[in-house]
Amino acid sequence: MNDQSTRPLPSWNDSEAKQSILTFVEKVTTTDSPDFVPPAERIATFDNDGTLWVEQPTYTQLAFAMDRIKALAPQHPEWKTTQPFKAVLDDDLEALAAGGKKGLIELIVASHAGMSTAEFEEIVTDWQDEARHPRFERRYTELVYQPMVELLAFLRANEFKTYIFSGGGVEFMRPMTEAAYGVPPEEVVGSTIETRYEVRDGEPVLMRLPEIDFIDDEAGKPIGIHKFIGRRPIAAFGNSTGDREMLEWTGAGSGPRLMMLLFHDDDEREYAYGSAKGLADPMLGAFPPSLMETAEEKDWIVASMKDDWNQVFAFES
Amino acid sequence: MNDQSTRPLPSWNDSEAKQSILTFVEKVTTTDSPDFVPPAERIATFDNDGTLWVEQPTYTQLAFAMDRIKALAPQHPEWKTTQPFKAVLDDDLEALAAGGKKGLIELIVASHAGMSTAEFEEIVTDWQDEARHPRFERRYTELVYQPMVELLAFLRANEFKTYIFSGGGVEFMRPMTEAAYGVPPEEVVGSTIETRYEVRDGEPVLMRLPEIDFIDDEAGKPIGIHKFIGRRPIAAFGNSTGDREMLEWTGAGSGPRLMMLLFHDDDEREYAYGSAKGLADPMLGAFPPSLMETAEEKDWIVASMKDDWNQVFAFES
Repeated sequence: MNDQSTRPLPSWNDSEAKQSILTFVEKVTTTDSPDFVPPAERIATFDNDGTLWVEQPTYTQLAFAMDRIKALAPQHPEWKTTQPFKAVLDDDLEALAAGGKKGLIELIVASHAGMSTAEFEEIVTDWQDEARHPRFERRYTELVYQPMVELLAFLRANEFKTYIFSGGGVEFMRPMTEAAYGVPPEEVVGSTIETRYEVRDGEPVLMRLPEIDFIDDEAGKPIGIHKFIGRRPIAAFGNSTGDREMLEWTGAGSGPRLMMLLFHDDDEREYAYGSAKGLADPMLGAFPPSLMETAEEKDWIVASMKDDWNQVFAFES
Repeated sequence: MNDQSTRPLPSWNDSEAKQSILTFVEKVTTTDSPDFVPPAERIATFDNDGTLWVEQPTYTQLAFAMDRIKALAPQHPEWKTTQPFKAVLDDDLEALAAGGKKGLIELIVASHAGMSTAEFEEIVTDWQDEARHPRFERRYTELVYQPMVELLAFLRANEFKTYIFSGGGVEFMRPMTEAAYGVPPEEVVGSTIETRYEVRDGEPVLMRLPEIDFIDDEAGKPIGIHKFIGRRPIAAFGNSTGDREMLEWTGAGSGPRLMMLLFHDDDEREYAYGSAKGLADPMLGAFPPSLMETAEEKDWIVASMKDDWNQVFAFES
């Protein structure tokens, strides 16, 4: 990570988006400013998929789930003819998308349960180490956005706590967030499945059950923020309709606020799917015109990947 | 709070309990010790009721719920003849106890829902300011154990994060934990009820619903620890059967561990109910012989309020 003490956010162009961040951080950290915010209240929340790392051509966790489904398929002959499993076995992303979030949850439940939390962590860690992204041919953990990594570090250097609030599974993220983002497990919140406490041969374990506990998306994000932090963030970062409520909730507090959406409009360095037209599949990172309208109306910053970032990935340099 | 830099834990007598704490903290913080634990992994979890503050003659939150039920009773004439509400209106703690945890939850749900989270916080804050404990005639927030407040501060001074994991409602605790214990809201975990995100006159609010979301007690404690922190604590403190699984889970990790139960055996300065015989009501702070056996078997420290503490409350001095 760059030393940002003399030149913060080096991968950001000197445009309005960067200036908005710098101005905001300066005013909340200047002791004699009327906008000063004590460090304890400097909470910033970040979406993960499409905000901190790549979510195309599918969510990383979906790629993981698909690999798991394929590995488990011999024990489930019925999957050959049942959706959404058939779509996975056929590598048919269109059919998968047709199943919507409901199908996604079915896949998650079938592929993410039935083992202890410790066993699952090992499965995830192994996969994240071995799997490669189809286009970039790199580990998914390398496909984190360098400008956002710098932003996280810059905020923490200014005594912010930087939380992740993602629709993704918390136990899929925690093995990678510390190394990739500098975010410790206790500041990562995501969707969860139910677990059961059991004592096996005298050793307590937490077994993962095929049942959804909490979906940390849309209205689930402010609900989760209230449950996990108990304070309202003063800054929030997202990239899709799933982040709307988190930004609304953040913006509704009193005092200075920073809300930002990342707009994916760079198909050379990453992907361009930043509008409803950009992608057939509304499940993945949708940024419809209605969200753009809300952003304009509420003065949320919309950062353009193409125009506001001079570098997308660390491996480019 | 005392400066503990020269003489830590001044309200603890120089007995085995105190010595165990000091030895543990020294070995996990000594860089060249084989038992050294990096600061990020120094997680300590504390039960609240009966571990950090008084839980007799009833849980503080139950006293609050009873006051709320009485205030709401005119709108619920049926409560005069229905348990557990009748027991509350008659101040009949015995009948309340007969209803067990199920009855308790009914009271919580009836008295803690139907308002926004912001409104509830105000109700709780007002009550905590006004209500007085029947025996000590002080605010409940003054009835925190000085030795435990010192222990929390001592651990934090040694780069521990000190979390509360309580069966009590998180939104009943968060208004008081920072001032009383130095624990910020994001390090307080408790039972929760469901909330719903709504936009009211353009302002987003979280409405509290009459439905249990999560009970942070017994097996719920390790489940909550895994969900909220994602790391295993290296130290855990409790006082009753509701803490058994938290201590088991903590103890099952590798490396140095500290597990401690507080035994209430001091009816002069506080209460003596530290055994199954001590209290008719198994609902409140039960410490049955079976728990004492487990403590002996697993080398959990049992701290005696009578013998190990030279001071119980700050206001004594």
